[in-house]
Amino acid sequence: MSANQQSADSPKPEVFPRSRRVYVAGNLHPDLQVPFRQVFLSPTRLSNGGVEANEPVRLYDTCGPWGDPTFHRRLAEGLPPLRLPWITKRGDVNPANSQATPAADRPHPQESTLKRVSLRARSGTAVTQMHYARQGIITPEMEYVAIRENLGRLEGNSDAKEPGTGRSNPTHPHASRTSETRAPRLITPEFVRDEVARGRAIIPANINHPECEPMIIGRHFLVKINANLGNSPLVSDLTAEVDKMRWAIQWGSDTVMDLSTGRDIHEIREGILRNSPVPVGTVPIYQALEKVGGRPEDLSWEVFRDTLVEQAEQGVDYFTIHAGVLLRFIPLTARRTCGIVSRGGSIMAKWCLAHHRENFLYTHFEEICEILRSYDICFSLGDGLRPGAIADANDDAQFAELETLGELTEIAWKHEVQTMIEGPGHVPMHLIQENMTRQLQACHEAPFYTLGPLTTDIAPGYDHITSAIGAAMIGWYGCAMLCYVTPKEHLGLPNRKDVKDGVIAYKIAAHAADLAKAHPGAQERDNTLSKARFDFRWDDQYNLSLDPETAMAFHDETLPNEHAKTARFCSMCGPQFCAMKITDEVRQYARDHGLAEDQALEQGLAERASEFRRTAAALNDRSP
Amino acid sequence: MSANQQSADSPKPEVFPRSRRVYVAGNLHPDLQVPFRQVFLSPTRLSNGGVEANEPVRLYDTCGPWGDPTFHRRLAEGLPPLRLPWITKRGDVNPANSQATPAADRPHPQESTLKRVSLRARSGTAVTQMHYARQGIITPEMEYVAIRENLGRLEGNSDAKEPGTGRSNPTHPHASRTSETRAPRLITPEFVRDEVARGRAIIPANINHPECEPMIIGRHFLVKINANLGNSPLVSDLTAEVDKMRWAIQWGSDTVMDLSTGRDIHEIREGILRNSPVPVGTVPIYQALEKVGGRPEDLSWEVFRDTLVEQAEQGVDYFTIHAGVLLRFIPLTARRTCGIVSRGGSIMAKWCLAHHRENFLYTHFEEICEILRSYDICFSLGDGLRPGAIADANDDAQFAELETLGELTEIAWKHEVQTMIEGPGHVPMHLIQENMTRQLQACHEAPFYTLGPLTTDIAPGYDHITSAIGAAMIGWYGCAMLCYVTPKEHLGLPNRKDVKDGVIAYKIAAHAADLAKAHPGAQERDNTLSKARFDFRWDDQYNLSLDPETAMAFHDETLPNEHAKTARFCSMCGPQFCAMKITDEVRQYARDHGLAEDQALEQGLAERASEFRRTAAALNDRSP
Repeated sequence: MSANQQSADSPKPEVFPRSRRVYVAGNLHPDLQVPFRQVFLSPTRLSNGGVEANEPVRLYDTCGPWGDPTFHRRLAEGLPPLRLPWITKRGDVNPANSQATPAADRPHPQESTLKRVSLRARSGTAVTQMHYARQGIITPEMEYVAIRENLGRLEGNSDAKEPGTGRSNPTHPHASRTSETRAPRLITPEFVRDEVARGRAIIPANINHPECEPMIIGRHFLVKINANLGNSPLVSDLTAEVDKMRWAIQWGSDTVMDLSTGRDIHEIREGILRNSPVPVGTVPIYQALEKVGGRPEDLSWEVFRDTLVEQAEQGVDYFTIHAGVLLRFIPLTARRTCGIVSRGGSIMAKWCLAHHRENFLYTHFEEICEILRSYDICFSLGDGLRPGAIADANDDAQFAELETLGELTEIAWKHEVQTMIEGPGHVPMHLIQENMTRQLQACHEAPFYTLGPLTTDIAPGYDHITSAIGAAMIGWYGCAMLCYVTPKEHLGLPNRKDVKDGVIAYKIAAHAADLAKAHPGAQERDNTLSKARFDFRWDDQYNLSLDPETAMAFHDETLPNEHAKTARFCSMCGPQFCAMKITDEVRQYARDHGLAEDQALEQGLAERASEFRRTAAALNDRSP
Repeated sequence: MSANQQSADSPKPEVFPRSRRVYVAGNLHPDLQVPFRQVFLSPTRLSNGGVEANEPVRLYDTCGPWGDPTFHRRLAEGLPPLRLPWITKRGDVNPANSQATPAADRPHPQESTLKRVSLRARSGTAVTQMHYARQGIITPEMEYVAIRENLGRLEGNSDAKEPGTGRSNPTHPHASRTSETRAPRLITPEFVRDEVARGRAIIPANINHPECEPMIIGRHFLVKINANLGNSPLVSDLTAEVDKMRWAIQWGSDTVMDLSTGRDIHEIREGILRNSPVPVGTVPIYQALEKVGGRPEDLSWEVFRDTLVEQAEQGVDYFTIHAGVLLRFIPLTARRTCGIVSRGGSIMAKWCLAHHRENFLYTHFEEICEILRSYDICFSLGDGLRPGAIADANDDAQFAELETLGELTEIAWKHEVQTMIEGPGHVPMHLIQENMTRQLQACHEAPFYTLGPLTTDIAPGYDHITSAIGAAMIGWYGCAMLCYVTPKEHLGLPNRKDVKDGVIAYKIAAHAADLAKAHPGAQERDNTLSKARFDFRWDDQYNLSLDPETAMAFHDETLPNEHAKTARFCSMCGPQFCAMKITDEVRQYARDHGLAEDQALEQGLAERASEFRRTAAALNDRSP
């Protein structure tokens, strides 16, 4: 461990055993403390009786301060404002003189228990990461992200020091055969700045959400996942939603969206924001609709604008805005199997038809940009016309909206507002790549953020799986963030188990995509876990996995006694008959017979191969 | 329902509500009775207060007689010998004069309770489906398979009568954009014969497994799945394994493999075969190893041959034979992360090294062919050197073996033995297609049968998901059968829940692949389910899904009361705020305003689009 790291004892031994929170400092910004979870491994027992140490592995950590065992705050206190010094040091913000609806008009005017001063850009200035990037400024957020993406291997811009197995195999044995979408070997702060400046990546970081640990969404970086939270008109509980947020980030969710639609929207959002170390997204039209009694036709630009400012001052990091649902596109959905399934899309469609006027989110788009640039809120341009059934995939309605989102992206960028694009939905496998290709082209390489897609409609109850297939594929093709789908999709509200199942399925999809893109460091974890598996280091195998407690519980179900946890066999084959044990003997044989693991092996093989080819030819000649 | 169908009341209302077993008769072979599960649907309630009927949907049914409510036998009685008249009518078999080890030498000489006479081809003749196909004979098995693949739409070689939604949308809206691997619009018995003759498809159907309902494995047909069963040295229970078989086929497994390695191998296999309406595969080397006390070096061709004959006479439909693990390939695995992970592969590797001789499965391959052709057993040429870690994917060892399997395929075909090829394993997404491409090329388009592949190593406990991603993709690329992986993979033996989770994940993968290949009828189920979803016909949505009881339970968890099951809203959005409800209103609006669902719509849209393009242009001009 290098000198610029702090360490502490394992916070949650029951969830992530033999893990320790470590921090890596910045170089350009030495006060940065980028968190990682470091997993310590047992030594390998060699056939000759000796042992070989295995270096610890550093993993990306989304838990925030909640994952630090020295951190002890209650929910009501909120997280410390990590980024506040960075924001104020830039000297471009003032306390906000709120333009939002006075508190008395809010549905629930209850004050937050946390004393905060909301900030806003000085008049006329942009305070977005895109703005700084275009100025050539590498912000603390950018360096933080670079260190994070390299899993700490950067350490002061030195060459990558790869932690891991000590094996001589290269980290990326398949690197030469990867797809075109791939990251550079090392992510530098300058590379981050350049990608943000070009609009190919975003760092969601509202100046009023200083609790947020910077992360980046872009196709040249690790694929990210989002978990949706939020109450509904039928079920509502603030503490439950904040708890669900912490639960989602414990398992690795990179952002959360608060999709609350019922009572207490403002308070639930405040609770989540003050306690969330990951960016928080919302769909502001949901709250605007609450303000007009749930009648879409009563919505207005003024109500929506006030809602945006209210949420901006609370600290929401990205807004889903359905500005591409244009009046002329709506009838294109009339003959679909499932019409319009996006809530925001159907609200705006109803408004457009009721007034026979163009979508006010579209006609006021530049005013929205002006608000977002004053707080550094990212656009997540919503796909209100996304397909809700396999039969509706890739149709005219969907792609007409996508083209419009591309136009809006250019307008947003003109205002230096960071922007990503939302995508479907339900898409059969053979039509997934077209979604990615057309999005990159229409939206000028702005990051894509898809919901799945689900690759079949026939498995309600298992849509975390139907959609993980599509999510992994589109992640490989270049999608930057995957919005999770839980097993309850189409059926009900997710409980804690559903949230975890959804997050784990999407961590699998995102990591499979990282492997296929040969992101630096992605294969490290697979290699280390597989080596542990081959060595029968059971605990290391569990501890390196996405869900150690489940892996261990499954093993113990068949072989519960303590001895089995260190046994050099498993329940599938038993002690006398183990493929890995036999392979171990094969290796020993190869060593004993001079087939050492070096160049001589290749030499010997060539000779033997030649000999056996002759034998095989003779065998083939025996055929009648 | 046509005249040549029989029907019966629903057998298991608790598992598949509103389903009825129906049978479709043959044309060439009128005595055929091909089973389907027909799902009956509620009518759609129209906005104008009227109702519209929804035709029932026919689903492929793997349950066999166990899915027929009029069938009441106990396990000890076994299934009726459906194919026995077809087999004896061909006049090319005799009672077997067993060449197997006498029963007294078997590990467990206990007699089966079922009286049977084993059959064998008359000396010198082949009794394989490939043999008949090459003679131009369309067997009952081939016509059975054709009817089955068309989901009963064939009905006497008439044009397809498509059951379903009554919607005007085509069944395959995306058909024109599908990949190259696709089936013809209708599967005819002649097409089946031709594919079997060319070796591109196999119908596993041992003459000693007359209980088996014919099915086909080939890339121009529905993608199939296999579930592995079997005890281990640590856990053994005959009834439990037979029960697991019935459980696996209830959820849709197309074949099962009995991978027992411990005690009672012969009896467990007998119990499974006599009660299985799906083909049963084995890895005979496992039992051979038991016979020599578990010491691979004590194996011999003679012991193996006797084991083959013993299993052939019991009725095993396909054998995994690791004949491609050649001595010269073994050292290629020495530097792998996970060496050799195939049990059969490691056994043969150990034998080869112990004797420093070539694999006896390879040197005796033609004698194996002679046995298999005498019973119509298919080869499943094993990939003993498959990668067991992402780091080992697509390496020299794996592809060297694949080339050898291609050579062996040609030898098997010379003997008219049906053959498929086993594939990996652990493969990152970007290397999956290469596996399929090289397999088709090296093995002359023989069907591919893969284990997953797993797309990452880091999620033990969730490998049904890591592998469903790879399975769906390789199924789309052309893989014919997907061997399931359960959540217990790498950790322990699957219980009933694991078997079900594995089967459902693989039914998802296979169906997603069928959709992407535009197999006739595959999209029908998605369209019908999505229409039910959009209509708020909750029960129809459940009943059309892969697992109705789970879908219903998930819905009821949030909205348990009876009213909610027929409510035109769900728990996600609540009654006031439902995307689908709003879309319904959008449609009504479109109708009210003359935007009817016909050509006039297009006309009207073009005019409106033109008008709005002008408006939008004006809006864009406002931008600074």
